[in-house]
Amino acid sequence: MSVKISVSRIEQLAASRKMSVEEVISAVSTRRGDYVEIESTSELQKLADILIMPMSEVLRGVCTDLTDGVKILRRDEGFCKVSNRGGNEYYTYQHLATSNSAPELMALKVALHCGCLENIVLNEGHSSREVVYILEGVVRVDWGSSAEAGRRTEVLNKGDSIYLSPNVPHSFIALEEASEILAFNYCLS
Amino acid sequence: MSVKISVSRIEQLAASRKMSVEEVISAVSTRRGDYVEIESTSELQKLADILIMPMSEVLRGVCTDLTDGVKILRRDEGFCKVSNRGGNEYYTYQHLATSNSAPELMALKVALHCGCLENIVLNEGHSSREVVYILEGVVRVDWGSSAEAGRRTEVLNKGDSIYLSPNVPHSFIALEEASEILAFNYCLS
Amino acid sequence: MSVKISVSRIEQLAASRKMSVEEVISAVSTRRGDYVEIESTSELQKLADILIMPMSEVLRGVCTDLTDGVKILRRDEGFCKVSNRGGNEYYTYQHLATSNSAPELMALKVALHCGCLENIVLNEGHSSREVVYILEGVVRVDWGSSAEAGRRTEVLNKGDSIYLSPNVPHSFIALEEASEILAFNYCLS
Amino acid sequence: MSVKISVSRIEQLAASRKMSVEEVISAVSTRRGDYVEIESTSELQKLADILIMPMSEVLRGVCTDLTDGVKILRRDEGFCKVSNRGGNEYYTYQHLATSNSAPELMALKVALHCGCLENIVLNEGHSSREVVYILEGVVRVDWGSSAEAGRRTEVLNKGDSIYLSPNVPHSFIALEEASEILAFNYCLS
Repeated sequence: MSVKISVSRIEQLAASRKMSVEEVISAVSTRRGDYVEIESTSELQKLADILIMPMSEVLRGVCTDLTDGVKILRRDEGFCKVSNRGGNEYYTYQHLATSNSAPELMALKVALHCGCLENIVLNEGHSSREVVYILEGVVRVDWGSSAEAGRRTEVLNKGDSIYLSPNVPHSFIALEEASEILAFNYCLS
Repeated sequence: MSVKISVSRIEQLAASRKMSVEEVISAVSTRRGDYVEIESTSELQKLADILIMPMSEVLRGVCTDLTDGVKILRRDEGFCKVSNRGGNEYYTYQHLATSNSAPELMALKVALHCGCLENIVLNEGHSSREVVYILEGVVRVDWGSSAEAGRRTEVLNKGDSIYLSPNVPHSFIALEEASEILAFNYCLS
Repeated sequence: MSVKISVSRIEQLAASRKMSVEEVISAVSTRRGDYVEIESTSELQKLADILIMPMSEVLRGVCTDLTDGVKILRRDEGFCKVSNRGGNEYYTYQHLATSNSAPELMALKVALHCGCLENIVLNEGHSSREVVYILEGVVRVDWGSSAEAGRRTEVLNKGDSIYLSPNVPHSFIALEEASEILAFNYCLS
Repeated sequence: MSVKISVSRIEQLAASRKMSVEEVISAVSTRRGDYVEIESTSELQKLADILIMPMSEVLRGVCTDLTDGVKILRRDEGFCKVSNRGGNEYYTYQHLATSNSAPELMALKVALHCGCLENIVLNEGHSSREVVYILEGVVRVDWGSSAEAGRRTEVLNKGDSIYLSPNVPHSFIALEEASEILAFNYCLS
């Protein structure tokens, strides 16, 4: 399967380098009407080199998975995975609507397994910003230092929400069976 | 109430302009140990002018509402508001955890009022990216052109989710009583 | 020529999707030690699809043209081009150090041709921010509206500099032979 | 001197929080026609608190130093400063056009003092991206590790240019009297 890049996209990239479409495309043999077709990575590299741009910039915006600007994911349709901490099942992650046009976003439904206070293990924080909504049950959140001293904790009920800054270590555990949260992560750049 | 800016923050700003803290602070009389205290906007302006920066840059990161990197909002605690479209109550917005350290984020619980297909009114889209999760009920989403031709529609059930690109006009209505969605909006820059 | 993506880069991308390297790579047959080799765009697309990311994100940071973080361009070595406005030779653009690791940057030496006030043609502005330094000669800058009413003008001498906001139409012409400017353009996102 | 924030700016901020201008402004007494006047930092803080935004966001775009989108700086008009390394005068920095509307940009003319190879001291790199153009003379650039092993060096002549990635330690010294460079630094976010 080849990748199609519109001539108008190439025109825009070329203009930023003070080049014309012809100066860029001449080295690429497979122009077809309004598109340039790229099949191999070496062809892609050649195009990128002429523009003095990374291949990633040349491909930006190509091959979206959206339908008229939107992508829908049905309940339980997305990628699903159990994650462990300290040897125990800790979270079951379930992808919500996730689009290749928004790689900076990760929306998840998370089922919380660990109900045992001595099993709490904080992660190391992550570079993304996060908002969490308590979907079901009663949840204990711990955050701050991964060392016990200087750690903080709160109990969250259905409908409560919490914003977490980047790089703040944290953990969610269930204080009631079948506790679930929604976690929305995004990176600004 | 005065604003306190740490000397280390001023040092960082000054360095980016190849200036020393002293060259910047000398014009501002109220240094107190590790802080500079600003009470009036004209003092703030003076500081910004020496640094050739906007006042907003000088204030960046000052006065956060976080507790050790986190902000919690209890159910129904946030700002709440009914919004109208086409003369009818359409949505009831309820703020979720919203922090002044993340102005690019808007997380909302939205109760859907309109159950009547002839009352559907699309908004004009917005510059933020959005993920929506169906919390309760059965929901109809319409999107695309605000003109009826070229409009698309789907029915979403509890647990379904949808990603919406910036500037895509859209509307959510309830096909069942008490339908609710969670909407997470964020701007990349 | 194939593209090599390090396994550690894939690990980072996979983690952001709560996936393991194995879950991502299993579909791609050509892992070689610390690298995955990609030769065709369909293989690249497959990898991107599993990660629910654009191909551009998968390729980010691959194939830099830097030497230990730096790229040097010798005088007159870069791409060079005469540009016309209103039927006349207007600028000769000469690329300065331009790197595929900084596609948001365009640094140019520009020789100014037009010395004739009636031939002034403003461009339409561009989305990049720009600083210009007068390298040689005497230069007239016009900016503001492309309509003559509401247009502003100044004379700039060697050593003067000017900052131009995005989307401000502008033009530089030579009031003396052999006038040259340096133009630094960059986009914030 | 008070700060004036346009009601349309407040409308835009309020809309992002699903609020009306009235809901925001009611707490601030000094609306005057199309503007709200802010004199003290506590008033500014109050406005920011209602919007759940940082004060910096409320002030963004206020009090620009541009004239119709442009700022001109005449030769030798900007801030000027000698900087030392290892006990010796190393650089004389001279600001070029620097605007409070572009705090991410720092354009400088730099006169190079040190002609003595044993006095070379690399900086620690900086988070900004940088392009340097050799304005006069002959210049030696060193970069890479600040330890001597693993350091690289090149000689640059008038008209050459160099791109430096963030966080790459580097140094420029004069191999000829009166060597000068232009340095353009910018941060992406």
